[in-house]
Amino acid sequence: MPDAPGCLIAFEGPEGAGKSTQLQLAAEELRRKGYAVEVTSEPGGTALGQSLRRLLLHDEERKPAALAELFLMLADRAQHVHEVLLPAVARGAIVLSDRFSGSTLAYQGYGRGLDLIAVSAADSLARQGLEPRVSILFDLPVDVGLQRAQRPDRFHREEIAFHQRVRRGFLALAAAEPGRWRVIDATLPRRVVHEEVMRAILESVGSVKPA
Amino acid sequence: MPDAPGCLIAFEGPEGAGKSTQLQLAAEELRRKGYAVEVTSEPGGTALGQSLRRLLLHDEERKPAALAELFLMLADRAQHVHEVLLPAVARGAIVLSDRFSGSTLAYQGYGRGLDLIAVSAADSLARQGLEPRVSILFDLPVDVGLQRAQRPDRFHREEIAFHQRVRRGFLALAAAEPGRWRVIDATLPRRVVHEEVMRAILESVGSVKPA
Repeated sequence: MPDAPGCLIAFEGPEGAGKSTQLQLAAEELRRKGYAVEVTSEPGGTALGQSLRRLLLHDEERKPAALAELFLMLADRAQHVHEVLLPAVARGAIVLSDRFSGSTLAYQGYGRGLDLIAVSAADSLARQGLEPRVSILFDLPVDVGLQRAQRPDRFHREEIAFHQRVRRGFLALAAAEPGRWRVIDATLPRRVVHEEVMRAILESVGSVKPA
Repeated sequence: MPDAPGCLIAFEGPEGAGKSTQLQLAAEELRRKGYAVEVTSEPGGTALGQSLRRLLLHDEERKPAALAELFLMLADRAQHVHEVLLPAVARGAIVLSDRFSGSTLAYQGYGRGLDLIAVSAADSLARQGLEPRVSILFDLPVDVGLQRAQRPDRFHREEIAFHQRVRRGFLALAAAEPGRWRVIDATLPRRVVHEEVMRAILESVGSVKPA
């Protein structure tokens, strides 16, 4: 989307890393600076997505197999991109999304062990050409994240090895595309993390100007 | 699945073509002949799939965009293949499924206009290597099918041009792979259609033997 007036910023990482809090802090500061900001999240950024979120995170009776989980995440993303993200970017907004494609590659690819090339190709179809201007990874040790997580879900109850694969996956994605990712040590004080988040965003929004 | 003892037979075509009725008739006759038969359908062949079926066919408030619809169908298929179809084929059954991949290519590919190569690649991931031994297409004119359909759903209310694209899509799929498809004129008398269905199945089950 090189000509779109707005842009997407993805907040990525495990539960408990503080990304939702940091997303709100960043949105407030960007608004104070005069930017048009929209905040959203995956899964669940649309009405359809809310139904899918319940199936994905909280329904033990209808637990999806790994591939079904992948396709449910991509259904959520396809609807989110179509209904929310592309229109917001076209309106010129800086869109902050709590999770995007990075989470699919980390959780369903590295975590569940699905083929990364296949996951990436299917995700590319779901994204409809939309790419984050930058993905910010909130990295922290697995045990710290699990202790801090405030909304335990089906993923939270996975074994430690799963969460370790997810963490290594996020770090591998960031290392493979340093121009598209910023890694922040999420164990640092909240104020320091916030400053790093703002630096990452302001460096990347480039041509997006305050209204 | 060349070494699997059982096999999958897909019943494809529009609503109103009589494929569900013919599937039951075929199952009964195969059982009389001593075969182990299992019958199933998509979307909705699993508990997860039943939830997805409601979202796909009967929820006007959360109507999915074309790509989201594709991924929901593939989530349904991935779960169905994992939980029902692969185990049944491994048990040696002849599995008769009311819809499979052909419907995804016809409805989401030809009908919705999504890229056929992309739909086929994503479907291939969802199928996990499983392919129907034969897909039987129940073909009939669009207006006849729409009049006969007994369970109107969200697809049923699409415009005539959509249903015409779906019909042409099914015929194109069958023409492209004549070794994998049989086309039956669904306007013929039920008994004649049944005889053609049985011929198609018995020609294709090959190494699968009655118990």
